[in-house]
Amino acid sequence: MTRIYLDNASTTPVAPEIVAEMMPFFEERFGNASSIHAYGQVARNALELAREELAKEIGAKPSEVFFASSGTEADNLAIKGVAFAFLGKPIHIISSALEHKAVLESLEWLRKKFGVAIDFVAHDANGRLDLDDLKRKIRPNETRLISIMHANNELGNINPIKDIAAIAKAHGVLFHCDAVQSAGKLPLNVEELGADLMTISGHKFHAPKGIGAIYVRTGTPMESLLHGGTHERNRRASTENVAFGVALAKALKLANACLDETNARVLSLRNAFLDALRNEGVPFALNGDQENCLPHILNLSFPIPPSRKLASDVLLLALDAEGVAVSNGSACASGAEKPSHVLLALGKSEPEAKASARVSFSKFNALDEVAEAARRFANALKRLL
Amino acid sequence: MTRIYLDNASTTPVAPEIVAEMMPFFEERFGNASSIHAYGQVARNALELAREELAKEIGAKPSEVFFASSGTEADNLAIKGVAFAFLGKPIHIISSALEHKAVLESLEWLRKKFGVAIDFVAHDANGRLDLDDLKRKIRPNETRLISIMHANNELGNINPIKDIAAIAKAHGVLFHCDAVQSAGKLPLNVEELGADLMTISGHKFHAPKGIGAIYVRTGTPMESLLHGGTHERNRRASTENVAFGVALAKALKLANACLDETNARVLSLRNAFLDALRNEGVPFALNGDQENCLPHILNLSFPIPPSRKLASDVLLLALDAEGVAVSNGSACASGAEKPSHVLLALGKSEPEAKASARVSFSKFNALDEVAEAARRFANALKRLL
Repeated sequence: MTRIYLDNASTTPVAPEIVAEMMPFFEERFGNASSIHAYGQVARNALELAREELAKEIGAKPSEVFFASSGTEADNLAIKGVAFAFLGKPIHIISSALEHKAVLESLEWLRKKFGVAIDFVAHDANGRLDLDDLKRKIRPNETRLISIMHANNELGNINPIKDIAAIAKAHGVLFHCDAVQSAGKLPLNVEELGADLMTISGHKFHAPKGIGAIYVRTGTPMESLLHGGTHERNRRASTENVAFGVALAKALKLANACLDETNARVLSLRNAFLDALRNEGVPFALNGDQENCLPHILNLSFPIPPSRKLASDVLLLALDAEGVAVSNGSACASGAEKPSHVLLALGKSEPEAKASARVSFSKFNALDEVAEAARRFANALKRLL
Repeated sequence: MTRIYLDNASTTPVAPEIVAEMMPFFEERFGNASSIHAYGQVARNALELAREELAKEIGAKPSEVFFASSGTEADNLAIKGVAFAFLGKPIHIISSALEHKAVLESLEWLRKKFGVAIDFVAHDANGRLDLDDLKRKIRPNETRLISIMHANNELGNINPIKDIAAIAKAHGVLFHCDAVQSAGKLPLNVEELGADLMTISGHKFHAPKGIGAIYVRTGTPMESLLHGGTHERNRRASTENVAFGVALAKALKLANACLDETNARVLSLRNAFLDALRNEGVPFALNGDQENCLPHILNLSFPIPPSRKLASDVLLLALDAEGVAVSNGSACASGAEKPSHVLLALGKSEPEAKASARVSFSKFNALDEVAEAARRFANALKRLL
């Protein structure tokens, strides 16, 4: 049985041209970028070129771009780094219950350990944020940070980032945007978006797992998470992973160069999948904001009777047995055996959340696999509906 | 001019067999190890096998081994993680002024931000630690952690870890051992060493830059640095870098399999280099404890007259111009334009510290390069002495 991978929002294969780009830095140009000798300078030059490329892709200055080991690290750095910078003063942070766990768990840790006050902006049943509620929740001289993702990793919802940034700015509050799921899918320009901090992760757009980056606007107060050497302008100590830094920049550059083309292609895959599901007679409902969403993510609920008492992963395992790889919320939360916190936050019941699947496409998917995947969905669901 | 790389304590090239080991995980076995479908399970299995291998190499249980993105991250996690676990109580940590900056700067940050009390154990002019002083500095119900490196990255000094661990244990204090420089050079068995926490970094023994690991003894109180998903048994959130985890385990396994052979070889390179230096008539003194030291690290001082007023990097740049790559202390501290904090802590003056070089060998160095390097040292020093 040929396996079909439709879990590209969890991770993507590294593109061959990205592998080729990073290969020289393992054996040949292996120097420590912090060494002052020729081996070090070769590595340093490659890393700084990558930083410049990355900065250009997001409309930032190179001095505002810092490599990190993942989107999770970058999110942690943004949130804890800003909170630690204000330690000793009242600290209030506004986010959303629909954020990635890297944001939510960082906030929860700050709340528990340091008494940081956390509020979540209200949203409707489709996950659309209530910006009036956001405004109301801002506390003068206490709210230090608003952290809202560019696009939701489970639903695909694209949030009104410019409006949120404008609200933050008007109140003198810093704004962090988790752009992990949108990078390589939507244009990312920190000036247009108005972000003070923005995080991305390479493995969502065909760079390897183990590399991310954070944009930090000049002058933004932020403590480091990793102390040690003077790497990354003292923002992030650690011997630089030059190979992956180069891969990250190249991958974003490649993705941005074909943004419209790729998006049109994955949108057609998405629509073909939905058509095929309908043709197979599979009943489903779409979750999330269908007006403003990423083209590559579908979040589907199936009317599996609550009497079935599904364990969280039953639907996924049934699909996996059919050779179709999809997910149920974020891979980062799997193993937790809990239904998606995002779907629960939208007001779904546990059985409803468990009877849902996220299907996500990439440019490497083919039209015929998508039709075949819909047939396999029909097979798997036959036994569950 | 053929370049000669004698800075293997800063970083090493990735070995070809390690590159081969990790390659399948970029394009083919690219799944997210936290995904429950087949793609995820292939990645998960590889990662857990790597964890088992790594655990076996250090005499730990697989459940006590956690991957991290670097030795610096692992050091930060050990030190801040333990400190955060005791937050709200008096916290006193004992370390040494000779530690790596990842340890020292983590401690300094804890001191500045959270009022954690820090003490450094006394040492002699060769960097040998005074264990009676260590005992005296332990404060009942306040000292939470002792952090001492296995072997010094600048001098090569091997510390009496078993004795230090015994002192820590007798006083009910946790013991963290930074084994970044000794991993792959000395046998590392957490039971024999008596460490509660131990950190290693792959790029010091021919794995790539961007991967490290931390050993955490079962039951050790330690907060996480990175929050988010349930990865690494809730100890370190982040999509797992399977390729590099596999590389790390394989690299340590390979290094340990040829420990004696490699050490004999680099020791002969080291001795040949010293002989050649003497034959060239280069005056030098050896820094550090020559009785207990790693075979691959030399720390040399040259009697450059203080009137020369060397900038910190002049000696290294003169050697680089001769095509020899060595360092002046840790690469992690370079760019700081400051002389080595380790040599200063040994009581050397700034001019003396600046007139020093760390020369470090690996199995990839050849005997003839080492002799040639000594000739180039003589050339470079001619202009400075």
